[in-house]
Amino acid sequence: MKRRHPRTARQWTSLDRQGRAPLYRQIYERFRNAIASGILQPGERLPSARSLASQLATARGTVDAAYDLLVSEGYIVCRGAAGTIVSPTLADVLHQRRQSFQTADARKNLRNTSVAAAGSSPGSFQMGLPALDAFPRSVWSRLAVKRARNLSSDAMTYQNPFGYEPLREAIASYLALARGISCSSEKIIITAGFQGAMGLITRTLLAPGDEVWVEDPGYPHARRALTAAGASLVPVPVDSQGMDVAAGIVKSPRARLAVVTPSHQAPLGVALDLPRRLSLLAWADKVDARIVEDDYDGEFRYNSKPLPALKSLDRSDRVLYVGTFSKVLFPGLRLGYMVLPDSLVDAFERVLDTLYRDSSTFIPSVVADFMTEGHFARHVKRMRQLYAERRAALAAALDEVFADRFDVKLQAGGMHLLAYLRHHERDVTVAQRANSHGLAVSALSRWSVKNDCGQALLLSFTNIPEELALREAKRLEQAIKY
Amino acid sequence: MKRRHPRTARQWTSLDRQGRAPLYRQIYERFRNAIASGILQPGERLPSARSLASQLATARGTVDAAYDLLVSEGYIVCRGAAGTIVSPTLADVLHQRRQSFQTADARKNLRNTSVAAAGSSPGSFQMGLPALDAFPRSVWSRLAVKRARNLSSDAMTYQNPFGYEPLREAIASYLALARGISCSSEKIIITAGFQGAMGLITRTLLAPGDEVWVEDPGYPHARRALTAAGASLVPVPVDSQGMDVAAGIVKSPRARLAVVTPSHQAPLGVALDLPRRLSLLAWADKVDARIVEDDYDGEFRYNSKPLPALKSLDRSDRVLYVGTFSKVLFPGLRLGYMVLPDSLVDAFERVLDTLYRDSSTFIPSVVADFMTEGHFARHVKRMRQLYAERRAALAAALDEVFADRFDVKLQAGGMHLLAYLRHHERDVTVAQRANSHGLAVSALSRWSVKNDCGQALLLSFTNIPEELALREAKRLEQAIKY
Repeated sequence: MKRRHPRTARQWTSLDRQGRAPLYRQIYERFRNAIASGILQPGERLPSARSLASQLATARGTVDAAYDLLVSEGYIVCRGAAGTIVSPTLADVLHQRRQSFQTADARKNLRNTSVAAAGSSPGSFQMGLPALDAFPRSVWSRLAVKRARNLSSDAMTYQNPFGYEPLREAIASYLALARGISCSSEKIIITAGFQGAMGLITRTLLAPGDEVWVEDPGYPHARRALTAAGASLVPVPVDSQGMDVAAGIVKSPRARLAVVTPSHQAPLGVALDLPRRLSLLAWADKVDARIVEDDYDGEFRYNSKPLPALKSLDRSDRVLYVGTFSKVLFPGLRLGYMVLPDSLVDAFERVLDTLYRDSSTFIPSVVADFMTEGHFARHVKRMRQLYAERRAALAAALDEVFADRFDVKLQAGGMHLLAYLRHHERDVTVAQRANSHGLAVSALSRWSVKNDCGQALLLSFTNIPEELALREAKRLEQAIKY
Repeated sequence: MKRRHPRTARQWTSLDRQGRAPLYRQIYERFRNAIASGILQPGERLPSARSLASQLATARGTVDAAYDLLVSEGYIVCRGAAGTIVSPTLADVLHQRRQSFQTADARKNLRNTSVAAAGSSPGSFQMGLPALDAFPRSVWSRLAVKRARNLSSDAMTYQNPFGYEPLREAIASYLALARGISCSSEKIIITAGFQGAMGLITRTLLAPGDEVWVEDPGYPHARRALTAAGASLVPVPVDSQGMDVAAGIVKSPRARLAVVTPSHQAPLGVALDLPRRLSLLAWADKVDARIVEDDYDGEFRYNSKPLPALKSLDRSDRVLYVGTFSKVLFPGLRLGYMVLPDSLVDAFERVLDTLYRDSSTFIPSVVADFMTEGHFARHVKRMRQLYAERRAALAAALDEVFADRFDVKLQAGGMHLLAYLRHHERDVTVAQRANSHGLAVSALSRWSVKNDCGQALLLSFTNIPEELALREAKRLEQAIKY
């Protein structure tokens, strides 16, 4: 084993210090590749974080961060005094692939293949990415060019901390029509996407140690944001009616905040039913808690009209509605918004005035034009149609290729489907195998804290054109075959 | 007195609920205008916050916020059980103006005049605004249009949390050349301006109650950001050598953070001298504190080369260098950056991954092009020349118009000058009079906490063309004449 260390260490001399990615990510990726391609074998020992940090002349924390990530993804395990080793359970997974990739050249080819494959249909199964091929780029560019031609003096000076007003007005009109939320623009804040909203919410409403209900299973980024803000998470189980509000009340009757996805639960895709919506609102009213409604993809429902937002039922000023343009336009915009309860407008304004600012008005002005000229509503409608087709096509292709291995579940909405594993396979293991072939597949159990919802793959269909569904299903089969 | 309430209240029915400004600002502005124009007179009682809130059907907190602001600016005072009244000391200030504006029409004209005057030379004396007339808009628009034409798939997906890499590289090159800071791009974070940087810094480094050194006098927004984050402020006096580091060590030997403007102290314009720089760094190293170097306008020095940044002396990884494009390009960009100590890169990355995000890459990509094509360095050089001329012209004009009233002090750099009041006038009173005529003049004592630095007006010269300096000085004289 020991003889491998010098080789590993030598590789690090080529670490890209001017690089695109932070050092810890580079370290993480090197190890992941080394494990996937067989340079490091299951059971093999990694250098200690301390000694690797010293070899690399980098901070110990950087190596720790890389190792933590590798542990959390199952590539390596800590064995106390025996050190950190490559996960022995990877042996089976890797066996078959190892045989065909023995030389360094072959390994290089592997990497290139993965990149090329991922490039040909960007993201493929990747969660949370809208159809990049179907975005009306020429319309968008025309509007952006128009705004870029004229830099007004107004746009050069300091801006409203709540964000670009015409966009806030366009959002208010849209929400009234599409989500049943009636609010004036002065209660709307433009945010740097979902993370920006969570940063602002936690800063304004939470003190360290405050209890917060989160859905279990639920969006891992929401949990991470809340944990980073010092909140104490209370996982509340989700069943076929959505978050089990009664269970939440038992576990943490006096929580300050509940973060929910009522329209289309992430990742199970169920809707929070009306009795639970009402009891959630009643609980929050009673204990003076607030509710964050994360309506990340409520626009996409295929068999019926989109459900009205929870916010539309909010008679007692409890709900902070959080929306994003990442799913209906594209994530690179980093643009989202929040609808505040009346009673919180001043508190948020104080924080916005001092610790947060929206960014330049340029992108917001283009999005506002896109909305007011009607392109937005048209685009959402087109995507709803397109996603319904792509969803059906992928479901059919998976049924054909994986009939005896997957049990594919379609929910009423959303941008992904769930493929439950019939044969007691671990979803994490299967997803890792797919990932190592460049397929961005997620494992349902990674979204859970305590609630066991079964073993399933989360597969987005948005970037898989109908005619390629079968090809992608077969690529997946190749990647994860026993 | 009482009879006036119905009139005041009637006015509120026209409050703009779909409006550009938050409600509390609208309320604040109505009162300020009503006081400035004589509708409300010194000593006159305002409606209670509770009753006004009920008349307006708005939250009590909204009215409170408006009243707080009016109190802090000296327009109104609280008299306990006697209620809130228009500040009696305003009587003198307003007397002269009252005489010429007795009718509602005249009052309306006054407002229009102010707006028009402010509009004709945007911002006039306003602090912190670069020369909007001298920005190379055609170059900027050409670059922006080029970027707007092409929306790459890459730009549509999720981005590096540290910000757009080519811009970080351009900043690294610029800082090495212009500010003596040698760092790689992976230690640079793109931020939403100064506020964005403070939000990120406080979130990552401070716990509520932590002591933080701030300069006295110093930038009020920095104090507000730190207070909003729960920090306990320790004002450290500033003299002609900058912040008195020894005094800081006596007052708060174990502070977690010191926020300083070493190149050009805001607002006194002095530089932190070398012995103090070294003792500040030594103190921070000894007690494991961090230093935020706010280098907001270090580029602008007129009689000598710009001073190297404090960060360039930082051998023990103490300094977070905060820069902004608000002063060298324009504030509407909402774009700034931070150079991290090595040892904090991972901690900031964790916060960026969860609670903060930079915005879209569009503006950063245009700024990166602007820098790499050489426009940025050229623009800074041109502005240095232009500001030197405008500064000299305004100083000469003020000397001519206010010879026996102002003692004008020029410092080595910056974007404003200080006009000390020779005759025991209160700077706040004089500034308020100027403000009510649409002149954005600041009072030095508003920047102080405890340290009495005299009574002076802070006057920016960046937006006053040489040939208009005398006219603007005379406008100021009209506004503040005895």
